[in-house]
Amino acid sequence: MSPLKNDLFLRALLRQPVPRTPLWMMRQAGRYLEEYRRTRAQAGSFMALAQNPELACEVTLQPLRRFALDAAILFSDILTIPDAMGLGLQFVAGEGPQFEHPLQSEAAIRRLQVPDMAHLRYVFDAVSLVRRELAGAVPLIGFAGSPFTLACYMIEGAGGTDYRRIKTLMYQRPDLLHQVLDINARAVQVYLHEQIRAGAQAIMIFDSWGGVLAHGLFQEFSLNYMQRILAGLPREHEGQRIPAIVFTKGGGLWLEDLARCGADALGVDWTVSLARARRCTGDAVALQGNLDPMALFGGERAIRAEVDRVLSDFGAVAGGGHVFNLGHGISQHTPPDAVSILVDAVGQASPAYH
Amino acid sequence: MSPLKNDLFLRALLRQPVPRTPLWMMRQAGRYLEEYRRTRAQAGSFMALAQNPELACEVTLQPLRRFALDAAILFSDILTIPDAMGLGLQFVAGEGPQFEHPLQSEAAIRRLQVPDMAHLRYVFDAVSLVRRELAGAVPLIGFAGSPFTLACYMIEGAGGTDYRRIKTLMYQRPDLLHQVLDINARAVQVYLHEQIRAGAQAIMIFDSWGGVLAHGLFQEFSLNYMQRILAGLPREHEGQRIPAIVFTKGGGLWLEDLARCGADALGVDWTVSLARARRCTGDAVALQGNLDPMALFGGERAIRAEVDRVLSDFGAVAGGGHVFNLGHGISQHTPPDAVSILVDAVGQASPAYH
Repeated sequence: MSPLKNDLFLRALLRQPVPRTPLWMMRQAGRYLEEYRRTRAQAGSFMALAQNPELACEVTLQPLRRFALDAAILFSDILTIPDAMGLGLQFVAGEGPQFEHPLQSEAAIRRLQVPDMAHLRYVFDAVSLVRRELAGAVPLIGFAGSPFTLACYMIEGAGGTDYRRIKTLMYQRPDLLHQVLDINARAVQVYLHEQIRAGAQAIMIFDSWGGVLAHGLFQEFSLNYMQRILAGLPREHEGQRIPAIVFTKGGGLWLEDLARCGADALGVDWTVSLARARRCTGDAVALQGNLDPMALFGGERAIRAEVDRVLSDFGAVAGGGHVFNLGHGISQHTPPDAVSILVDAVGQASPAYH
Repeated sequence: MSPLKNDLFLRALLRQPVPRTPLWMMRQAGRYLEEYRRTRAQAGSFMALAQNPELACEVTLQPLRRFALDAAILFSDILTIPDAMGLGLQFVAGEGPQFEHPLQSEAAIRRLQVPDMAHLRYVFDAVSLVRRELAGAVPLIGFAGSPFTLACYMIEGAGGTDYRRIKTLMYQRPDLLHQVLDINARAVQVYLHEQIRAGAQAIMIFDSWGGVLAHGLFQEFSLNYMQRILAGLPREHEGQRIPAIVFTKGGGLWLEDLARCGADALGVDWTVSLARARRCTGDAVALQGNLDPMALFGGERAIRAEVDRVLSDFGAVAGGGHVFNLGHGISQHTPPDAVSILVDAVGQASPAYH
């Protein structure tokens, strides 16, 4: 493998000094880019794109050709695991992901097993290919959904609004939900390990729906399982430390607990004050975030002002510890020029904080 | 007016000692009750129901006939104000509220005015009627949406998912959004004042969407305007103090700021630890909440356990200060028997904390 030319992202995650704040964007390989839409059309469907290592590699690299971003993230989806478990993932136009065979009976839950990673070979092949094509330009992030977030989709059958099915199960039969979460956690751990072996240089767990849980139940049904994954996951590969990021959307109230889950960095959404987050976590972890993705619709003046707000809220950084990102995935409607302004603004304004 | 027989709710809001924790539920007059569905069908539409004082009074009282709740809340909708402003409110089946004439141009914003309260007479008539019919059984809560939450609907034209329209305006033309918010705040203040004059014994501001704002912008675009309303609102009527409750859904990170907005009590959703909320707010305000509405789907054992969790999280109460509620409106799918269990559980378990 080629030596890494730009290691700012990894250094910031490990709270080592950096001359400026590194930047990447959640969902940076996506629909706001016309070249993505072309490749997606060529593939025929979202899953066909994700399952084709050459095309997945192509869309992973597309944003890096346009913008001076400091990390690549594998183009894939968190629902590859339940798909490999046999739940039958489909992307319905305008309605998002749906499962043909959601977990809606005790028998279905009892049948659930950690999938054979051979079914996910396309993911690991894509990781290897991206690493080769990147040729050390920037690090590659691998990722997975949190066990609870996967369970939401697996039990609801689709993205939910009130999470009534999974919460009914949680309150009525916590034993069954724990069984699903246990299997998910084991699957995610093996899956992330395989991504690391294939070349992922950092890993991220997306806990997109942990924030819908009540205080106390978040800790029991989401955080616990992320902690278990990180405790069991080898975090060195070929002599390199593999940093781990955990992002619980809407988890700003639980940063103290999250800081103890074994992650090197926590993703935070835009409702969180980074100054407060640093105080809460005692600088024990790096922080990643947290521009409101909608700020990219505000024009140049607003983008620069909001970038300044995020940087100054985090404040001066003696030893790294801040990775600039959006607080959620970039909207498909974002004008690409706004991203150029964002990259320029972070590059211009951040050195003063280091 | 009849003297109040059960004033536990008002006493708890004002942090005066009570022998048990009073309880009411957001959206307690609603679709989970078959008698509501019948009255709603009789009215023909949601707005016809809200605009008919006799029928609005009837559905307001329905939950109190079934359950020993400690407060009534006027059956109405937060969107009565923008409707009275001429935006043309419609409830589309399965899609929720929509406006025929959303604010989608600078000209439309410049034309916006505080509506004549004569257009909202049906609301004040309903308040008077409910007070008469309650005959002092329990206090009546009046309410309004927060200026920002109203603006979300007025600008998006409907409930949003990413709030792209209002946030684009906020980032691009904050002056125009401030103009809308200023008018909304003045309208809400007069509206709440009229409800108090008609007989509302407590008032609540629903900031349902303030939680989608970034840290800093919440304070500027939502909190500020609620504070202004409360500063200008006469809070005594016929010798009685009228307590005010502010509920920012997803506002748990901002409780310190919210505690200084002039409210007597803050509503909190289920992601918030009440123990932490008490520490954050220094017991300067009462707290209202915060059972996950989905816990009502868990059966008796779970409901009692989750009630105990909420009560013990708040902890011992020397001088009132806790009103039991859900952390959000009750789901239309809730079995009414679950509410009976909830009422019994709070009645049984809460005296130990007083």
